Amino acid sequence: MQMSPDTRSSPPAHTDLTRFLNPRGIAVVGASNDLSRIGGQPIRLLTEFGFTGKVYPVNPKYTEIKGLTCYPDIASLPKPCDVALIALSGAHVPGVIEECGKAGIPFAIVLSAGFGEVSDGKGLQEKLKAAINRSGVRIVGPNCLGVANLSIGMRAGFGGTLQMNTLKAGSIAMVTQSGGFGFGVVSTACYYGLGFNYVISTGNEDDLTMLDWVEHVLEQPEVDIVTVFMEGTTEGQRLLRIGERALQLGKPIVVWKVGDSAVGSKAVTSHTARLTAGPELFRAAFRRGGFVEVRDIDDLVDVCKAFLGRKIPRGNRVGVITMSGGAGVLLADRCTEAGLTLPKLTDATTAKLRETMVAYASPDNPVDATASGYNDNFAAFSKAVTFMLDDPNIDALIARCPRGKGAKPWAEGLVPILKNIDKPFLINWGTAPDDNADVLAYLEANGVPCILAPGRTAHALGALHEFGAKRRAHEARQSRATSRAIAKQALRFPVAAGALGEHHSKSLLRSYGIPAVEEKLFSPQEIDKLVQPPFAFPLVVKIESPDIPHKTEAGVVRLNITSADELKQAAHDVLVAAKKYKADARIDGILVQQMASGLEVIVGAVNDPHFGPVVTFGLGGIFTELLKDVTHRFAPFDVATAKEAMMEIKGAPLLTGYRGKPALDVDALADVLARVSLFIADHADRVAELDINPLFVRELGNGVLAADALVVLKV
Amino acid sequence: MQMSPDTRSSPPAHTDLTRFLNPRGIAVVGASNDLSRIGGQPIRLLTEFGFTGKVYPVNPKYTEIKGLTCYPDIASLPKPCDVALIALSGAHVPGVIEECGKAGIPFAIVLSAGFGEVSDGKGLQEKLKAAINRSGVRIVGPNCLGVANLSIGMRAGFGGTLQMNTLKAGSIAMVTQSGGFGFGVVSTACYYGLGFNYVISTGNEDDLTMLDWVEHVLEQPEVDIVTVFMEGTTEGQRLLRIGERALQLGKPIVVWKVGDSAVGSKAVTSHTARLTAGPELFRAAFRRGGFVEVRDIDDLVDVCKAFLGRKIPRGNRVGVITMSGGAGVLLADRCTEAGLTLPKLTDATTAKLRETMVAYASPDNPVDATASGYNDNFAAFSKAVTFMLDDPNIDALIARCPRGKGAKPWAEGLVPILKNIDKPFLINWGTAPDDNADVLAYLEANGVPCILAPGRTAHALGALHEFGAKRRAHEARQSRATSRAIAKQALRFPVAAGALGEHHSKSLLRSYGIPAVEEKLFSPQEIDKLVQPPFAFPLVVKIESPDIPHKTEAGVVRLNITSADELKQAAHDVLVAAKKYKADARIDGILVQQMASGLEVIVGAVNDPHFGPVVTFGLGGIFTELLKDVTHRFAPFDVATAKEAMMEIKGAPLLTGYRGKPALDVDALADVLARVSLFIADHADRVAELDINPLFVRELGNGVLAADALVVLKV
Repeated sequence: MQMSPDTRSSPPAHTDLTRFLNPRGIAVVGASNDLSRIGGQPIRLLTEFGFTGKVYPVNPKYTEIKGLTCYPDIASLPKPCDVALIALSGAHVPGVIEECGKAGIPFAIVLSAGFGEVSDGKGLQEKLKAAINRSGVRIVGPNCLGVANLSIGMRAGFGGTLQMNTLKAGSIAMVTQSGGFGFGVVSTACYYGLGFNYVISTGNEDDLTMLDWVEHVLEQPEVDIVTVFMEGTTEGQRLLRIGERALQLGKPIVVWKVGDSAVGSKAVTSHTARLTAGPELFRAAFRRGGFVEVRDIDDLVDVCKAFLGRKIPRGNRVGVITMSGGAGVLLADRCTEAGLTLPKLTDATTAKLRETMVAYASPDNPVDATASGYNDNFAAFSKAVTFMLDDPNIDALIARCPRGKGAKPWAEGLVPILKNIDKPFLINWGTAPDDNADVLAYLEANGVPCILAPGRTAHALGALHEFGAKRRAHEARQSRATSRAIAKQALRFPVAAGALGEHHSKSLLRSYGIPAVEEKLFSPQEIDKLVQPPFAFPLVVKIESPDIPHKTEAGVVRLNITSADELKQAAHDVLVAAKKYKADARIDGILVQQMASGLEVIVGAVNDPHFGPVVTFGLGGIFTELLKDVTHRFAPFDVATAKEAMMEIKGAPLLTGYRGKPALDVDALADVLARVSLFIADHADRVAELDINPLFVRELGNGVLAADALVVLKV
Repeated sequence: MQMSPDTRSSPPAHTDLTRFLNPRGIAVVGASNDLSRIGGQPIRLLTEFGFTGKVYPVNPKYTEIKGLTCYPDIASLPKPCDVALIALSGAHVPGVIEECGKAGIPFAIVLSAGFGEVSDGKGLQEKLKAAINRSGVRIVGPNCLGVANLSIGMRAGFGGTLQMNTLKAGSIAMVTQSGGFGFGVVSTACYYGLGFNYVISTGNEDDLTMLDWVEHVLEQPEVDIVTVFMEGTTEGQRLLRIGERALQLGKPIVVWKVGDSAVGSKAVTSHTARLTAGPELFRAAFRRGGFVEVRDIDDLVDVCKAFLGRKIPRGNRVGVITMSGGAGVLLADRCTEAGLTLPKLTDATTAKLRETMVAYASPDNPVDATASGYNDNFAAFSKAVTFMLDDPNIDALIARCPRGKGAKPWAEGLVPILKNIDKPFLINWGTAPDDNADVLAYLEANGVPCILAPGRTAHALGALHEFGAKRRAHEARQSRATSRAIAKQALRFPVAAGALGEHHSKSLLRSYGIPAVEEKLFSPQEIDKLVQPPFAFPLVVKIESPDIPHKTEAGVVRLNITSADELKQAAHDVLVAAKKYKADARIDGILVQQMASGLEVIVGAVNDPHFGPVVTFGLGGIFTELLKDVTHRFAPFDVATAKEAMMEIKGAPLLTGYRGKPALDVDALADVLARVSLFIADHADRVAELDINPLFVRELGNGVLAADALVVLKV
């Protein structure tokens, strides 16, 4: 399906989807009495797993299926019937949707395929969309595996995974753009102890989209975590808004995004054919909002377990306690990698640990309590855990779990203590999940996440910490009176679209307070008559032309001009070069500038069609182009965010004074980044992109100067 | 324990450890009739898990323990008794070792603690070492958890993990420097279907070391894979040799190395106090030899499973086939990350796939066979798998496994076909391990690895590919008549140790055919009398002094000298600067050089005390120092390896012609790297380190030039 913002001429009004997920009655349209078929499976699924609503098979061929009254058509269905589950061949679907509309059935799940996903299905897709618009029925699908609400036994779909007895109800929702894969993830996650309420396969998304569902389930109080298997979305800005909302609600959206590699992305296209932005903008969106990106089933499970513990650390300082030095070393390594630190414990804690533990234990973080716990039923180990949790130097604790007979009493002693402590406490389960499985289940039922491998434990705690940090940043953004101190000056855009000349581009930026090199535009005649140079030598001479955006490649730049004669010669040369490069180029004049110097950086901004305005920052030349040492932030943002972004690149030490070199004016640079973000955001309707390349960053107190700039207007 | 190569005055002769791992009799010295105690647990472990040898409790207090005759002392033990398991308090251990020697017991496992790992245990450690040397008894430990050979039911140790019924015998060996953690890993790996024969906790390594054990088990035909939990070793060169041997045998050493982070490394020190090299040299060793580095339990399990499939891919081209587009996209992403590529299938394969699969399937790699397999019992899916395995464009195949009732017949049909195909075939198991668990067990029993998550599947195949590539490189190294074409010229080292002057350093490098800038050494008087410059201007003037290795910082360099007057002035200036910088610096003269230019790179080499000679390469300045964009190779190596190393750095495109810039002389650069590696390796006894900084790399055909060099001799 080619989904672009304009394909739906008049989108149905936003609908509350609560009844969709909690239907009082479901009609199975195209019901079959062969319960293995696509029209029969839903009958079995809706009758054998305790669904609390009514089930109405619809098929004129039968009067009864599996003991249920079978209705000849939709018009004759009893009320209330909130959802029609459609398992007919594709051609019949648009008509059925219209009938649902007439019968007052507000929602439909279309399992049928043969629409936009196949080459000859576009016509049918258009018919379906027209039926949706006319009827007002909201649908999920077509070409989906269905919708489940495991908390009321609703399994409205088909396929092997929905038939598994091992699916468990819980407070996690799953929205998946790949039905088969996503349902498989749910079943595996249930095996590892997680439980789900809503599971939605979004199919072709001819009406309700992945983001519609994410937005809906995120708001439901019974949902603690939203998980998403995502191939892409064209609604980047909405994704950003949902991310902010997740932070506001304090609920993570655990997102598994695929299609990053070239071949993977091509496969996405052939699979459901979405227009998506590059992976780096998704990544930037995930990093800003209440998302936790995962990359495999294990991290999805681990991260969900960690969040179900319902405690977010206040900082990144972690304590580690084990009964084996090797495990402590390993956890220390991996915590460090996950952005956490292992601080020194307070002297008081260290003293208490020393007093409590055996002599050959190590009271330094990571604490090695040694295997001596097997001699005292973990009494000392329990105390040590409490001492560490109480340590003000520690924001979170990871412990390896005791095993054997003493483990259960240990856990039972610990759980009540943890109830009064608001720091996350994660267990790194030391053996297989079936070893002391009852202890594992007991701990997790009491909000103590037990993660199955040490690296995974560190990773999961890192995710909690990162969510906490983003939440604090979000709160700061909300509370800070948005500093709009910079007056939004009226911009008089020329009628033309496309690239503006350098001089014109810089004037626009100057109006936003972005400093640029001193420069003046001359006609060729004016240059010839010039007696005095406009500024002190050395100077730079360039062609000003909207048709030659890449001036160096075109050979229309002359640097380091040190005399009036050179200046005139240079003006002549660049004119000749410009005509040679592009005979019909519009020449707006000869631009004469002061030479400037400093560390070269690049500030770029685009109005991405999906995500909206975004600013890119990097060091000049090969740093950006070859080493890809760049960072992105969605606009607008403030100076603090600009600084944070600047410091993220690997080359950041070059800004702050590398190897005895003087520190550069990072405040002025951050100010310009924030101003660029305001410019691109304020004029999102007219400006497609802008580039300041290079921007010279000078020593502390000397500010920055844009040496070249390019603004491209939307066509 | 402080372990350095010289702590053992006269090491016992190398011993065959076969009997240690396959003892005919084991004496439990310090046996207890309380079977929960450290002296009692081994009695239980050795009698309840089918140990095929004899068990001899030793304790003068008893005549019988658990039905076994208890002996009063070692002298009275029956023969053959190959191993003494010592569970006495530390102070008694040296005496017992001497008794073992007298009684002809060749091996001992010392569980006892209180030796080098505690602050007041050094004396006891020395006594133990003396006893070992005098008696010739080879020991594992002290302070270890024991030794197991699960294939003969031998569990000679203590602790909870050894008591687990779920430990499985198999062809994997484990050598662990952290007993508690390593044994936990073994138990978890068994849960996921792996089996072990030898499991060795090395403890303090006062005699037999981790590498002794790795070397031994690697050679055993019944061992297919060696796994190692490693904190460190001082024997870097031996580690390298073992890595080569693993490649020769075609057996992977799956290594889990910890202690990389600062805090982790500190914890290693406090735990068992080893002197280790930095993690980057271990990583370089792992990358060269037959090691597969893993970072968590899951990858250890996955990599072992993949290798147990006993097929190594000939290249990195992978085919992917799934029944869900989303899974295919994901696998494509992760395979790409793992260094694999998804090539286009041949037209013939594509045509056959198109013919076999349903119309809406996608025959392009990653192939989406769709869920239609559930309608034909996976007949088309089976054929598609075979077609892909036959495709000459494909070196390995990853498939998602069908589930449900049809899965077993599918697997049974596939296994005989796979027996005749030498390409690796990995299954990405799509749901939980307990879903169709019998199919999973059947497949794995028949050499088809089933990996539990998609990213993990790609990672495991990537590990197989990397091992294959290293094995091919190893074979090339072996077969190539080692090109010693460069004559090893006699080097006349000065008597002094420490840094040599630049001129002296460059002469040494020139003798190895390493080109350097033209230069001449003058006395200050000679400079004053100079009429003609020694080379064409521009020139460089420097102080030649072994006491000023960092000349730029000392201000004793003048660049771009363009006249005789400037030259004399510069010579004067640098002399003054040198005296100011270091009043007593030895001045060997004034070095006059031709100015050179080109891309600045750095070639360094050190004789690491643990790993031996290693060469480092990177681009100049901030690339190396700030961005750490460097690569390492152990010396000596050939030109091909040098090129491979060069191309590994991120900045490599700068060498090969970045953005229309001319390509540089990479052949000449590779030649110099190889020559540097010969130099540092040939003179490992005298040379501590050398640095060529910068080496100028010029355009193709123009070679390279060392502009500055520093050789440091061992003190």
